[in-house]
Amino acid sequence: MDDQNLKQTLTPSTQSALKKTLDIICGKWRLFIIFQLGTETRRYGELRRMIPDISEKVLIQELKALIELGVLEKKSFNEVPPRVEYNLTARGLKVLPTLYQLTSVGEVFLEP
Amino acid sequence: MDDQNLKQTLTPSTQSALKKTLDIICGKWRLFIIFQLGTETRRYGELRRMIPDISEKVLIQELKALIELGVLEKKSFNEVPPRVEYNLTARGLKVLPTLYQLTSVGEVFLEP
Repeated sequence: MDDQNLKQTLTPSTQSALKKTLDIICGKWRLFIIFQLGTETRRYGELRRMIPDISEKVLIQELKALIELGVLEKKSFNEVPPRVEYNLTARGLKVLPTLYQLTSVGEVFLEP
Repeated sequence: MDDQNLKQTLTPSTQSALKKTLDIICGKWRLFIIFQLGTETRRYGELRRMIPDISEKVLIQELKALIELGVLEKKSFNEVPPRVEYNLTARGLKVLPTLYQLTSVGEVFLEP
């Protein structure tokens, strides 16, 4: 097999798609946040309690990153006290079943 | 929903499995290396040419990490010149179809 064939195994568009995937799932807590939301709408305080090991600073930073990536959306309600809710976008919901399967990958390697 | 229910959404065993998954796919080049191998056995030099953007130092480091994680195995042959080959382990091959689906996740977010 010559060099040209070797290089073509991963096309540039596949490489771009993979890089995007890794951006979405490889932030330290991103996959956890996505799974905790699932198909639900959650208030900020709920997410905070659902992932108690994460610092407030990092949670806010990771939520912001996931919004910028188009995975989550945030709704702010002008109420007293203020209400802020998060949910997956349509694209986020579309990839959720594939992301759920990632648990099975780790399970295969944790088997004795 | 009380706090106890919120925390239970991701069980400890799911969290462990997810952490293992992230170890496997979130090294900068790990998913690329796994995809370039696929079901094939490749010599070191072939992998080097297939992923030209990676430095030799990082490729060696990432191959070693994937071997320690149980994803790859390395075979060294006492030949002149020496021959070193890599392939996915049985567990690596088992999760390969799920990993291939990760391309589709990025594609969803790259759509206009």
